[in-house]
Amino acid sequence: MAKEITSRAQDYAQWYNDLILKGGLADYTAVRGCMVIKPHGFALWENMRDQLDKMFKATGHVNAYFPLFIPKSFLSKEAAHVEGFAKECAVVTHYRLKNDPNGNGVVVDPDAKLEEELIVRPTSETIIWSTYKDWIQSYRDLPLLINQWANVVRWEMRTRLFLRTAEFLWQEGHTAHATAQEAVAETRQMLDIYASFAEEWMAMPVIKGVKTASERFAGAEDTYCIEALMQDGKALQAGTSHFLGQNFAKAFDVKFTDKENKLDYVWATSWGVSTRLVGALVMAHSDDEGLVLPPKIAPLQVVIVPIFKGNDQKVLIDQKVNELMAELKAAGVRVKYDDNDNNRPGWKFAEYEMKGVPVRIALGARDLENNVAEVARRDTKEKKAFSLDGLSNTIVQLLEDIQNAMFEKAKAYRDAHIIKVDNWEDFEKALDGEGGFIAAHWDGTAPTEEAIKQKTKATIRCIPLSNPQEEGKCILTGQPSKERVLFARAY
Amino acid sequence: MAKEITSRAQDYAQWYNDLILKGGLADYTAVRGCMVIKPHGFALWENMRDQLDKMFKATGHVNAYFPLFIPKSFLSKEAAHVEGFAKECAVVTHYRLKNDPNGNGVVVDPDAKLEEELIVRPTSETIIWSTYKDWIQSYRDLPLLINQWANVVRWEMRTRLFLRTAEFLWQEGHTAHATAQEAVAETRQMLDIYASFAEEWMAMPVIKGVKTASERFAGAEDTYCIEALMQDGKALQAGTSHFLGQNFAKAFDVKFTDKENKLDYVWATSWGVSTRLVGALVMAHSDDEGLVLPPKIAPLQVVIVPIFKGNDQKVLIDQKVNELMAELKAAGVRVKYDDNDNNRPGWKFAEYEMKGVPVRIALGARDLENNVAEVARRDTKEKKAFSLDGLSNTIVQLLEDIQNAMFEKAKAYRDAHIIKVDNWEDFEKALDGEGGFIAAHWDGTAPTEEAIKQKTKATIRCIPLSNPQEEGKCILTGQPSKERVLFARAY
Repeated sequence: MAKEITSRAQDYAQWYNDLILKGGLADYTAVRGCMVIKPHGFALWENMRDQLDKMFKATGHVNAYFPLFIPKSFLSKEAAHVEGFAKECAVVTHYRLKNDPNGNGVVVDPDAKLEEELIVRPTSETIIWSTYKDWIQSYRDLPLLINQWANVVRWEMRTRLFLRTAEFLWQEGHTAHATAQEAVAETRQMLDIYASFAEEWMAMPVIKGVKTASERFAGAEDTYCIEALMQDGKALQAGTSHFLGQNFAKAFDVKFTDKENKLDYVWATSWGVSTRLVGALVMAHSDDEGLVLPPKIAPLQVVIVPIFKGNDQKVLIDQKVNELMAELKAAGVRVKYDDNDNNRPGWKFAEYEMKGVPVRIALGARDLENNVAEVARRDTKEKKAFSLDGLSNTIVQLLEDIQNAMFEKAKAYRDAHIIKVDNWEDFEKALDGEGGFIAAHWDGTAPTEEAIKQKTKATIRCIPLSNPQEEGKCILTGQPSKERVLFARAY
Repeated sequence: MAKEITSRAQDYAQWYNDLILKGGLADYTAVRGCMVIKPHGFALWENMRDQLDKMFKATGHVNAYFPLFIPKSFLSKEAAHVEGFAKECAVVTHYRLKNDPNGNGVVVDPDAKLEEELIVRPTSETIIWSTYKDWIQSYRDLPLLINQWANVVRWEMRTRLFLRTAEFLWQEGHTAHATAQEAVAETRQMLDIYASFAEEWMAMPVIKGVKTASERFAGAEDTYCIEALMQDGKALQAGTSHFLGQNFAKAFDVKFTDKENKLDYVWATSWGVSTRLVGALVMAHSDDEGLVLPPKIAPLQVVIVPIFKGNDQKVLIDQKVNELMAELKAAGVRVKYDDNDNNRPGWKFAEYEMKGVPVRIALGARDLENNVAEVARRDTKEKKAFSLDGLSNTIVQLLEDIQNAMFEKAKAYRDAHIIKVDNWEDFEKALDGEGGFIAAHWDGTAPTEEAIKQKTKATIRCIPLSNPQEEGKCILTGQPSKERVLFARAY
């Protein structure tokens, strides 16, 4: 009955792909590395986007839209940016097609070559700061708190649905400030917003931290991040917030006169999350029967399935369901009554399980007589008969319980997988065992970081904020260290 | 005080550009033909998008997201599509940059040439129908009612902010149906939605009609449109809805088995509106002092400006304003209290006039004594003192009145500019006079349509729906005609 999914134990990567495809979240396309986000997946993204957008606006940000294309020369204006940023980009070289003189469809018109190639934005710092130059003259123009929702392209060689695709959707905030202090505060504020969103809406616990120098965004002074743990013990970077110092202001000559009429370069931040979060959501909660979605983000929160023989029973059930639907909708619940004749209840149960609908209500003729309905939770798969009296309130409460339970479950798993190790042997053992975040001492140098990565594929995910200071010795070199950092293999 | 705007009488095109730039709606960028949509302009677009999205969802549509890129060969799969569609497209030929060996930034890596060039989507019929092939097997998979919000690129040679830019934002609906009848009904339903949106939300009257064969979308069997009239007497196509027949299904081999188990090609529609609507909104209503925005779409509906000397007065005003703000917000009004010390009231008045805020409330110490506030309407520039008692209700009503008045004013202008002419001389006179929609007989042939276009730059905007049948003679050829069509010069 249920479409077949590979189990997590059998092949975690295949389980993930099966879920994305069979859960109706995304599909492959004829364009290498580009996916189509299907309606169920896009509805998830819309819910995430709308909530983040509210949080951005509540903190004074506004949306704008900058060009898709970036002149090639812009990329090299900020030295660290061009050095560090991957050069796998889609390059536009021509602006016209023409009919093939040999009659084979269309060909690129060689006469329509661009003087300067255009790059499809992999991120927008350069084009945005070239624009800010015209918008910022005085401290009165600051702060500038702008966000954009956009598509970006990075020509990834190995792609995975949602986690790493050539084109993806994201938001990128780009703010301009009069002081370093204010820009740092903004960077931290946005990190906090990302963390609240991940925990309160996605029910996904995250660790807030700062990246090491080698893991920083190209052109940043500091990169803050939130890191989540997936069910296979691998980490996933779920959002980043960068303090850019005056680097881009200097590259694009963006100065302002301060209150004392002195000229100075503007201070910058940028921060972003992407459709990768959909992949994170799936891997954080789902099980071998399909998606498990937190109620606050689920496109559909409750589905009601009637179980009946003949029209007489159906009429009575319909009447009760209509009342219930009205009450649930009034309470803001996203609910659907699936009385489609073409499919049997069992098929529907499996289908909504696969799609991750948090609560399923089954209502039959005998249930009506007993004044109850059978309510099934997707997260625990627990079934229970609830009284029809006040059922809408019961459901509203249940949705809240599920949201909390999913967070607590994920947090318990995550907390159980933060492992302190103090020597190399234990480090490798932990990584090759259940994985997780390995809290270990590191000597603070880039060569050691790189050597550990080469040996184990584990990277330093972050140095947690308000990390306890503690004397120790680097697991690789034995050099002294003052704090533990979090290592993990990561997506 | 007010930033200077060219008057409409002096230079309409310049007036439009001044408004867009000084009203803070958009700006030019370093990328040819690409604009940046600034926060005020983007907030307008967001309000339009959100309302349209609601109307789409209320009629059963869901959102999805398809790739930005289209393999070049796809464009030539539907013969009429490739013939008729402009070939000015952005072409991606390479996927990697590298450091310039001569040290001058980055260059395109010649080793990273794509086997098949990718086209940045100018519209998505081809990539979407290539995907639908995998999604549709049976009548049970139909109808498929999908919309996407996306950026598209058409390499326009002459660009104008919002009206014609190389990159623009839009929505494109792409639906699949089991019967021609159902697809036609969908096409007409979406046209009606566009018309309601334009009239009820943008306060912009439109004429619903069908395009002549030569003005049809490339690959369509029929193109329906809504046409609006700008204040300079030129028409603007504000939205189109296409019945695509089985053309794309045949090009991409999308078949389904019907209830009788017979195999047939799927029937299709597509329909879209774009950020061009922002340009239409500006040109339909604004005046020589700045933007005039309909309340339902205006990012800010009400601004309150205090007029005071000294802190004692300010405290009293603040108190009253806070009450009023709370009431207005509770009524769902988008309101701002501008008590910024840096600018004088006169400067603020001019600024909000420029930005098109529908209602301005000025509140001074003497007003408080008299229990009144001065309320100014942006559309009529009328000022009036209203009692503070029940002021929030007064304002809510006023916003509604403004919305209606703006529509009625635009409609009166439009109706006065639908001109019946019966011979060539009057036709040219009407076009060269105040312009407008010229209702004239046409012999129904493409050569005549083209000849009229060559002579006058006027095109047939549409054949209005439920057009009265009437005997007449073509204004150019004198051949018999059964109905009038609407000619105009257009954006």
